[in-house]
Amino acid sequence: MSGRVLVVDDVATNRLLLRAKLSSAYYDVVVAEDGPKALDLARSEQPDMVMLDVMMPGMDGFAVCARLKADPETAHIPVIMVTALDTAEERIRGLEAGADDFLSKPFNDLALFARVRSLMRMKMMFDELRLRDLTSRELGLAEVMPDQDIEAEPSGPILIAPPDAGRGGQLAAELGARLSIGTIVTSSEREALNLSRLELPDCFIVHQTLMEGGDGLRLVSALRARPETRQSAVILVVENGDVGTAAKGLDLGASDYIEAPFDVNELIARIRSQLRRKRYSDRLRSNVRNGLKLAVIDPLTGIYNRRYASQHMIRVMERARETGGVFAVMMIDLDKFKSINDRFGHDAGDAVLREFSRRLQENIRGVDLVARFGGEEFFVAMPDVDAGAAGHAAERIRRAIEDAPVRLPGGAGEVDVTVSIGVAVAGAGDGDAEAIIKRADSALYLSKEGGRNRVSFFARAA
Amino acid sequence: MSGRVLVVDDVATNRLLLRAKLSSAYYDVVVAEDGPKALDLARSEQPDMVMLDVMMPGMDGFAVCARLKADPETAHIPVIMVTALDTAEERIRGLEAGADDFLSKPFNDLALFARVRSLMRMKMMFDELRLRDLTSRELGLAEVMPDQDIEAEPSGPILIAPPDAGRGGQLAAELGARLSIGTIVTSSEREALNLSRLELPDCFIVHQTLMEGGDGLRLVSALRARPETRQSAVILVVENGDVGTAAKGLDLGASDYIEAPFDVNELIARIRSQLRRKRYSDRLRSNVRNGLKLAVIDPLTGIYNRRYASQHMIRVMERARETGGVFAVMMIDLDKFKSINDRFGHDAGDAVLREFSRRLQENIRGVDLVARFGGEEFFVAMPDVDAGAAGHAAERIRRAIEDAPVRLPGGAGEVDVTVSIGVAVAGAGDGDAEAIIKRADSALYLSKEGGRNRVSFFARAA
Ligand SMILES: Nc1nc2c(ncn2[C@@H]2O[C@@H]3COP(=O)(O)O[C@H]4[C@@H](O)[C@H](n5cnc6c(=O)[nH]c(N)nc65)O[C@@H]4COP(=O)(O)O[C@H]3[C@H]2O)c(=O)[nH]1
Ligand SMILES: Nc1nc2c(ncn2[C@@H]2O[C@@H]3COP(=O)(O)O[C@H]4[C@@H](O)[C@H](n5cnc6c(=O)[nH]c(N)nc65)O[C@@H]4COP(=O)(O)O[C@H]3[C@H]2O)c(=O)[nH]1
Ligand SMILES: Nc1nc2c(ncn2[C@@H]2O[C@@H]3COP(=O)(O)O[C@H]4[C@@H](O)[C@H](n5cnc6c(=O)[nH]c(N)nc65)O[C@@H]4COP(=O)(O)O[C@H]3[C@H]2O)c(=O)[nH]1
Ligand SMILES: Nc1nc2c(ncn2[C@@H]2O[C@@H]3COP(=O)(O)O[C@H]4[C@@H](O)[C@H](n5cnc6c(=O)[nH]c(N)nc65)O[C@@H]4COP(=O)(O)O[C@H]3[C@H]2O)c(=O)[nH]1
Ligand SMILES: Nc1nc2c(ncn2[C@@H]2O[C@@H]3COP(=O)(O)O[C@H]4[C@@H](O)[C@H](n5cnc6c(=O)[nH]c(N)nc65)O[C@@H]4COP(=O)(O)O[C@H]3[C@H]2O)c(=O)[nH]1
Ligand SMILES: [Mg+2]
Ligand SMILES: [Mg+2]
Ligand SMILES: [Mg+2]
Repeated sequence: MSGRVLVVDDVATNRLLLRAKLSSAYYDVVVAEDGPKALDLARSEQPDMVMLDVMMPGMDGFAVCARLKADPETAHIPVIMVTALDTAEERIRGLEAGADDFLSKPFNDLALFARVRSLMRMKMMFDELRLRDLTSRELGLAEVMPDQDIEAEPSGPILIAPPDAGRGGQLAAELGARLSIGTIVTSSEREALNLSRLELPDCFIVHQTLMEGGDGLRLVSALRARPETRQSAVILVVENGDVGTAAKGLDLGASDYIEAPFDVNELIARIRSQLRRKRYSDRLRSNVRNGLKLAVIDPLTGIYNRRYASQHMIRVMERARETGGVFAVMMIDLDKFKSINDRFGHDAGDAVLREFSRRLQENIRGVDLVARFGGEEFFVAMPDVDAGAAGHAAERIRRAIEDAPVRLPGGAGEVDVTVSIGVAVAGAGDGDAEAIIKRADSALYLSKEGGRNRVSFFARAA
Repeated sequence: MSGRVLVVDDVATNRLLLRAKLSSAYYDVVVAEDGPKALDLARSEQPDMVMLDVMMPGMDGFAVCARLKADPETAHIPVIMVTALDTAEERIRGLEAGADDFLSKPFNDLALFARVRSLMRMKMMFDELRLRDLTSRELGLAEVMPDQDIEAEPSGPILIAPPDAGRGGQLAAELGARLSIGTIVTSSEREALNLSRLELPDCFIVHQTLMEGGDGLRLVSALRARPETRQSAVILVVENGDVGTAAKGLDLGASDYIEAPFDVNELIARIRSQLRRKRYSDRLRSNVRNGLKLAVIDPLTGIYNRRYASQHMIRVMERARETGGVFAVMMIDLDKFKSINDRFGHDAGDAVLREFSRRLQENIRGVDLVARFGGEEFFVAMPDVDAGAAGHAAERIRRAIEDAPVRLPGGAGEVDVTVSIGVAVAGAGDGDAEAIIKRADSALYLSKEGGRNRVSFFARAA
C-alpha cells in the first residue's frame, strides 16, 4: 500500500537519498530540514509516516518525536528514527520518546521497506478506527483521554516461545522481575497456540527458531491467522544481522522485532511501545462500541430504552416462531408518580425511578429484558414464559416495590411506592410487537381502573 | 500479513500444490475437495480468502461462489477463481457470481502472491468495519440490508487516465454508453489528481503508461496517498502478460487490474465488482456513524437530546473564553401540556411536541443549538448573542407558537399552545454549563409564576 512519508534530516544529501529511495518505491515524499518545519508539515501534510534523523542542530530527533507524540493531531503517525550510531541506549531513548522503530545509516533496503510496509499497514488500520472515534468524540460519546496517558504495562501474561528451555527460563525471570507480570514459556508452536486461547496473552515474544524444531515465522503467521490473537502484540527475536527473517516477520504481521543477543531493557522498552499501541487501538474500538450502546440506554436508570426493546422484541418473536412456544410482556407504571415529583421535587422522583429499576432488575431473570419506555413506564419481555409463570413474576415485581419504602436523597425521608402491571401472553401469529404491547397496555389500564397496585392480564376476545 | 486460505479443488494434486505454495509463504491452509464441503468449511473455519477451482463435478465453482456470496456469514470473504481455460466470458461469469479475481493454471507465483496480499489487506479492513457494524446491528441501530442488494452502478463519474487521447476517447464513449454515467479523460498525472479533488470520481481506470510520459503506478500510488481518494476503486490497465506491473500495482493499493487489449464487457464487470465492494464498505462505515448519531437524537422530535446539548455547551463556552464574548441560553416549557395529553390523548401530545420543535427550529438560526431536554422542556443555546438579541429571539419563538394553533392528528381539530421561556446570558467566568442552565431555569420559573406565555431574564444579583 502506498502512502505519504515525511523525511526529516538536516543534511541535504541524506534527504535526497531517502527521497529517491522512497520515490522509486512509489511513496509520496515530503521533506523537512529541521524539527520546527517537521512539526508544521506533520500537521499540514498529514503524512502516513515520519522518518526522523536523530542528530540535528537545534531540536534533535528525540525532541521532535516527543512533540509529535504529545500532539493529538499527530500522535498516531508512526515514527522511524534514523541514526548513524546505533546503540541500545539510543534505541531505548527513542522508544521512550514514542518512536516506532530505528534504522541505521547506511540503509539496508530490505529492512527499510519491510518496516515501512508494516507501519503503513498499521497506519491505515488506525485511520479507519480514528475516523469512527472522531465521530463519537464530536457527538460527545467517547471517553476523551490524552493519548500519552495510555497505560503501557501489560495486563495479561507475556507468552515466550524461546529457542531452548534455558533461554526461555532466563528471559521469563528477567521480564517477570521487571514488569511484575506473569510469563509463560512454551515448548512448541502447537502449545503456544493452545495456550494463547486459554491465557489470552497481551504480548508474544517469538524466537526465530523454536524448541522441538519449530519455526518462529510459522508461529507469527498462525497467531495472525486467528481472530483471537490478531490484535495482540507480537515481537520476533531474530539472530543478529538476519534482516531477511526480520523483514519476512514484519510482512507476516509481527508488530516488531529485536536482534539477539539483546539488552533486556531494550526488549522491555519495545514491549511497552507495542502495548501502548495496542491499548490505543483497543480504546478506539471500545469508544465506538460504548458510544453505540448509549443510543439504546436510558441515561437516568441505565437500563435499555424503548428503541432497544423494539429491536429485542423482533428476536423474541422470531424465537417463538421457531420453537412454537409462547412469551409474555408486561407494562409497568408507577402509581401516582406525579405526586411524588410534586411533593418532593424532581430529584426525589428521579431517585424513585432509579430505585424501582434496580429492584425490577433484581427480581427478574437475566434472560428477560427490562426497559424504560419513558416517564414512569417500564417494560419487561419474558421469552418462553406462559401465563402462569408471567403472573408469578409480575406479582413478585409488584411486591418488590410495595414491600419496602424508597429512601429519598438528601435525608428527605422515605416514600411508599406501588406499581400497576399489565401482562399479555402471546405466540407466533398473535400479531406484531406493537399489537402485543398494546394488549399489555390495556391490561395495565385495567389495573389502574381496578384501584392500582395490582396485576391484570389481557383477556383474549373469545 | 498472514491469514487463512481455503483451497477448493476436486483434484488432489492441485490441492497439494496450492497448499504447498501457500504454506511456504506461511499462510494457514484449509482444503476442501468439493462445493458442499467448501461451503461448510467457509462457515466453520472463517477463512480470510477462498481459492476456488472452476471445474468440479456436481457443484461447479460458479455455483459455489454464488452461494458463498449469498450467505451473509461468508459474503465478505474474497474469492479467487482458479481455472485452466481462461477466457473473457468465463471471467465475466465469475465476476457476476461475485468472484474477486481469477488465476489460471499453471500459476505465476508473482501474480498469485500479489493478489493474495491485496485481498488479505482488504479482508482485514472489512473485518474491522464489520466488527463495528455487528455491534450496531445487535443494538438495532443499523440499517440491515442483504449484502447482495448493494447497488453496483457508479454514482460519481469514472476517471480514465489513458495512454493516448484516442484510446481514452474510445473507452470513454464505450463506458458512457454502457453505464449511463459521466466519464472524464485526463491527459496527465497532475490533472488526474486535481480533477479527482473536484469531481470525486467513484472509480479510476489507470493505464500503465499515461500521456505526457506519465507513470500509471505513480498515479495509483498518489491516489492511495490522499485521504480523499484512498477508498476509491482503482483499476490498473497493464500490457498483456506484464504480470510484474500488475503485481506492483496491487501492492501499491490498486483494487484490481486488467490486461490490455481487453473486452469492454470484462472491464465493466470488474468496475461493477469493485463498486459493489466500495458500496459495501461505505455502508458499513455509515451504519456506525448513523448508529452513533442516534445516541444524541430525541426519537420523538428528531432534534438533539440533552446528552448532546451538554457536550455542545462545552464548545459554546470554550468559544466565549477564546473570543471574550457572551452567549445566551433559553429554557422553554410548554404551558399546561399535561392537560393536552389528558384532553386529547398521547398521540395529540406527541403531535404538539413535534410541531413545536419544527416551529422552534424554523425560527432560530442554524448556528444556534436546539435540544429537547425531556418531557415538554426544550433548550436553546445561542453563541455570540447578548441580552437584547436573545430577548428578540425568545419573543419570536414565543409568538411562533402562540400565533397559530396546532392541528391535531386524525382530524381531532386544533389546539392553542403557548410556551414560557427563561433566558440567561453569560460569558467566560460565569460558572459551568450546569450553573448557567440553572439560571435559565429560574428565569423560566419567573415566566410560569408571572402567568405563563412570556419571556423572563435571569437577573444577576448585584
Ligand atoms: N421466586 C422466584 N424468583 C425468581 C425466579 N426467577 C428469577 N427470580 C428472581 O430474579 C432474580 C434474578 O434471577 P436470575 O437473573 O435468573 O439469577 C438467578 C439464577 O441465575 C440463579 N438461580 C436461583 N435459583 C435458581 C433456580 O431455581 N434455577 C436456576 N436455573 N437458577 C437459579 O441465581 C440467581 C439469583 O437468584 P435470586 O437471588 O433468587 O434472584 C432472582 C430472583 O429474585 C423464579 O422462578 N421465582
Ligand atoms: N405525549 C407525550 N407526553 C409527554 C412526553 N413527555 C412528557 N409528556 C407528558 O407531559 C406530562 C407531564 O410531564 P411532566 O410535567 O414532566 O410530569 C411528569 C414528570 O413529573 C414525571 N416524570 C416522567 N418522567 C420522569 C423522569 O424521567 N424523571 C422525573 N423526575 N420525573 C418524570 O412524571 C410526570 C408525569 O408523567 P406523564 O404521566 O408521562 O405525564 C407527562 C406526559 O403526559 C412525551 O414525550 N410525549
Ligand atoms: N423467564 C422468567 N420466568 C420466570 C420468572 N419468575 C418465574 N418464572 C417462571 O414461573 C415459574 C414459577 O415460578 P415460581 O412460582 O417462583 O417457582 C420457582 C421458584 O420457586 C424457584 N426458582 C427458580 N428460579 C429462581 C430464582 O432465580 N430465584 C428464586 N428465589 N427462586 C427461583 O423454582 C420454581 C420453579 O422455577 P421454574 O421451573 O423455572 O418455573 C418458573 C418459571 O417458569 C422470571 O423472572 N423470568
Ligand atoms: N426576525 C428575525 N428572525 C431571525 C433572525 N435570525 C434568525 N431568524 C429566524 O430563524 C430562521 C432561520 O435562520 P437561519 O437558519 O439563519 O436561516 C436564514 C439565514 O440563512 C438567511 N437570512 C435571512 N435573513 C438574513 C439576514 O439578515 N442576514 C443573514 N446573514 N442571513 C439571513 O435566510 C435564512 C432563512 O431566513 P428566515 O426565513 O427569515 O428564517 C429565519 C428567521 O425566521 C433575526 O435576526 N431576526
Ligand atoms: N444567534 C441568533 N441571534 C439572533 C437571532 N434572532 C435575533 N438575533 C440577534 O438579535 C439581533 C436583532 O434581531 P432582529 O431585531 O430580529 O433584527 C434582525 C432582523 O430584522 C434581520 N434578520 C437577520 N437575520 C434574519 C433572518 O434570518 N430572518 C429574518 N426574517 N430577519 C433576519 O436583521 C436584523 C439584524 O440582525 P443582526 O444584526 O444579526 O442582529 C440580530 C442578532 O444579533 C437568532 O435566532 N439567533
Ligand atoms: Mg543529522
Ligand atoms: Mg477441477
Ligand atoms: Mg410541565
